[in-house]
Amino acid sequence: MNIEMQPIGYVRSEVQREADDCWAGLVVAIELVAPFTVESLAGLTDFSHVEILFFLDRVAPERIHTGARHPRGCANWPAAGIFAQRGRERPNRIGLSVCRVVAVEGTRLLVAELDAIDGSPVLDIKPWMAEFGPRGEVRQPEWSRELMASYWS
Amino acid sequence: MNIEMQPIGYVRSEVQREADDCWAGLVVAIELVAPFTVESLAGLTDFSHVEILFFLDRVAPERIHTGARHPRGCANWPAAGIFAQRGRERPNRIGLSVCRVVAVEGTRLLVAELDAIDGSPVLDIKPWMAEFGPRGEVRQPEWSRELMASYWS
Repeated sequence: MNIEMQPIGYVRSEVQREADDCWAGLVVAIELVAPFTVESLAGLTDFSHVEILFFLDRVAPERIHTGARHPRGCANWPAAGIFAQRGRERPNRIGLSVCRVVAVEGTRLLVAELDAIDGSPVLDIKPWMAEFGPRGEVRQPEWSRELMASYWS
Repeated sequence: MNIEMQPIGYVRSEVQREADDCWAGLVVAIELVAPFTVESLAGLTDFSHVEILFFLDRVAPERIHTGARHPRGCANWPAAGIFAQRGRERPNRIGLSVCRVVAVEGTRLLVAELDAIDGSPVLDIKPWMAEFGPRGEVRQPEWSRELMASYWS
């Protein structure tokens, strides 16, 4: 079964190359393509945050992992299945981040701290609703906290 | 530009038809398909929650909206762009929910409160890390709170 998708827009960012960390403070633009119009973004600034789904097009298919591996190749951290980590060498290569809405300018959406590089195709934009966040206590392993420590720095 | 994806698995649920509300309490299975193995899910139960990305295959392409509309067709709520709401008749038809991890049984992942119907193709599973949640104060319009009031009931 093949599922086909088309970009709804593209990321315009000063970050040109794949990077692991230090995404703080960055403001990037998402430029919608046809058939999308200003109507497609109507009301979006009523939300403080959005989820951006994008295609990790710079990850070559042969780099995709399907089993378990040490996150970022770091042997200090336990091997974890590709679905128990957020590494970008993943099946279907979908990136996903919650970003702060900065502004809407026509068919351009400006967001803060999107960890997608320049030119990345965008697949979807969803407004963040608190009710869609995790319900119940959140628990995560220590390695993931260590890995994330420099992500937004 | 066409982007091709393949399901990594399928949803097995008692919910057979499209539904808007009342997803609380439901436990559904995601059954991985080849080439995925038990290794693909290694360590996932160290996380309390996962994000499930799935394909809304029961939404026919001609139902997809690209502009603005009243959420759920309800005139009491202001028209909002398709990217300022989470309705399922959306470009690329990707569904996304944060779910509680119930158990991993071989290549089956059991999750609570996934709002995907039986047979839905799954595109990705990502562990929830608190650091990827919204940073800064969350704000959302009143209509979205009213809409979500019955969602998890």
